[in-house]
Amino acid sequence: MREAGSYVLEAGGKRLRPAILLVVSRLLGYRGDHDVRYGAIVEMIHTATLVHDDIIDSAAVRRGRVTANHRWGNQLTVLLGDWLYIRAIELALEVAEVPAMQALSHATSQMTEGEILGLDFQGQIRVTREQYLEITRRKTAELFSVASSLPTYFSPEYERYRPALEEYGRNIGMCFQIVDDILDITGSQKSLGKPVFSDLREGKLTLPFIALLPHLDASERKTLEEILATGQFRETSPDQLRDLLQRHRAVEESREAANEFARLAVAALDDLPKGPELDALTAAPRFVIDRDY
Amino acid sequence: MREAGSYVLEAGGKRLRPAILLVVSRLLGYRGDHDVRYGAIVEMIHTATLVHDDIIDSAAVRRGRVTANHRWGNQLTVLLGDWLYIRAIELALEVAEVPAMQALSHATSQMTEGEILGLDFQGQIRVTREQYLEITRRKTAELFSVASSLPTYFSPEYERYRPALEEYGRNIGMCFQIVDDILDITGSQKSLGKPVFSDLREGKLTLPFIALLPHLDASERKTLEEILATGQFRETSPDQLRDLLQRHRAVEESREAANEFARLAVAALDDLPKGPELDALTAAPRFVIDRDY
Repeated sequence: MREAGSYVLEAGGKRLRPAILLVVSRLLGYRGDHDVRYGAIVEMIHTATLVHDDIIDSAAVRRGRVTANHRWGNQLTVLLGDWLYIRAIELALEVAEVPAMQALSHATSQMTEGEILGLDFQGQIRVTREQYLEITRRKTAELFSVASSLPTYFSPEYERYRPALEEYGRNIGMCFQIVDDILDITGSQKSLGKPVFSDLREGKLTLPFIALLPHLDASERKTLEEILATGQFRETSPDQLRDLLQRHRAVEESREAANEFARLAVAALDDLPKGPELDALTAAPRFVIDRDY
Repeated sequence: MREAGSYVLEAGGKRLRPAILLVVSRLLGYRGDHDVRYGAIVEMIHTATLVHDDIIDSAAVRRGRVTANHRWGNQLTVLLGDWLYIRAIELALEVAEVPAMQALSHATSQMTEGEILGLDFQGQIRVTREQYLEITRRKTAELFSVASSLPTYFSPEYERYRPALEEYGRNIGMCFQIVDDILDITGSQKSLGKPVFSDLREGKLTLPFIALLPHLDASERKTLEEILATGQFRETSPDQLRDLLQRHRAVEESREAANEFARLAVAALDDLPKGPELDALTAAPRFVIDRDY
C-alpha cells in the first residue's frame, strides 16, 4: 500500500484544489492549520476518484505514467482507492468539524453519482449539452466548489463568503473540465501524459463533439459513433477528426464556453476582501485556460 | 444505481451485524432511534466491502445470485461500492456523533488493510496461523467489534460496557469467519450460494488448510500449491481434498478454534445486565457455529 500510494501521489498533478483552498484560507485571514489538513483531504479524495476512474476506464496511462491498475492490477487498485477515501475521512474526523465534513461528503457522493450518470451515456452519441453540463458539474465542479469554500467553515465570521466561494469554485471547475476536454483533442500524447482522444476512445462524448454533431452528415456521424462504440479509429484518423472539429469551430465554441465559466468565476469574487490573494484567485481561471500541461 | 443497489440489498444475507447492534442497544436500555441508523450504516459498509471484494476476487456468484460485477461490470460495481461507503458516511454525519464515527471509520480502514494483507498472500502457501488470524481480525472481526460496541456511544452511562462489547464482537467475528472457512469446504454449492472451495480457488489459504499443511507429503503439498496458484482442480478432485482434510482432522481442528472464539465471546459478556437480550447475545455464537450454509 505504501508503494502503490507513493507511486500514485508522486505522479504529481497540479494540486489545483488544495492550492485554491490554501489561497482562500489566507484571503480570509485564517491562522490555524486546518487549511493544510483539508487541502490534503481534498487531494486524497480527488486521487481516490482518479484511481477508481482508471479502473472504470481501463486506462493504461495517467500523468505520463503507467496507471496503478495496470501496474498492480484492479484488485489492489480498488483497495487503494477505498483506503484513500477512508484515510481522508479519518483525517477529517480528527478535527471533527461536522458541517465541513458534510460539505465534503456531499461533494464526494455527487462525484460518484456523476460518474454513474456518465457511465449511462458511455459509448452513446445521444448526450445533450445540458446532460454534459450536469455530469461535469457533479464529476468535477462540486469538488472544486467545496475546496474553495471549505475555509469558510473555519470561523463563523467567514460564513458570509461561502455562497460566493462555492460559486467561484463551481465555475472554475466547469472551466477546468471543458479545457481538459479540449486538450484531449488539441494536445499531444507527450504533453497530455496519456493518448490523445482518450475521452472518445473511452466512449465519452465531450463538449467539442456535442458542438460538432449538428454539422455532421450521416456518414460522418456514423464514423464518430463507431469510434465511440469501439474505441478504435478505423475509417478516419485522429488528424482528420481534428480537422473536422476545427473546420466547424467546435473547439472554438467549447473554448468560448470555458471562457464564460471563467468569467462567472471571477464575477463571483466581487465582494471578497481585496489583496494579493484575491488577485491570485482572479488570475486562476486564466491559468486553467492557458495551461498546455 | 437504484437497480444495482436494490439487487445487492435484496440478495439478503443474515444481517448479523445490525442484529447484534440492535440487541446490544436494547440490552443497554437505549430508547432513541440511533441504533436503527447505525445498524443500517454498518450493513451498508459491510455490503460496500462485499461488492468491492467480488471485483477483487472476480467472483461470479454470491448469496446464490450472480454478483453485481458479473451482471453490471466492474465499472458500475466500483462506483456502487464507493457510493454505499459515502452514503453510509452521510447517514452518520446527520447525527454527528464523532467518537462513534471514528470507531466506524477505524474499523473500515482495518478492513481495507486486512484485504490488502490478504492480497499479499494470495496464491501463496506460506501463510502462518498468526498471519491468518491477523488478516481475519482486520477483515472480519473489527466490524463485528464496532457493531456490537456502537450503542455504548449513545450515552456516557453505557461507556463502561464498551471494552466487554468490543471483545464480544471481535471474538464472535473471528468465530464467524472460521466457520465460513469450514463451510466453504464442507458445504454444498446450493447451501453456500457459491461454488465450494471458493477460497482456495481464489488463492486464499484458510485455517483448515493451514492446519492440514504439516501433515502433507511433498507431492500432496505441490498439488495444493497448484490449486492455489491456478484456481483449478487438476490432479485431485474436491472430494479427494475433502477426504484429506477429514483424515488429518484439519476441519475438526478449525472447528475447535471456532469454538474457542465462541467461548471467549460469551466470557466477555460476564458483567453485562442480565435479561433476554443477554441470553440472545450468549446464544449468538452457537447460532453462528451451527448454521449450515
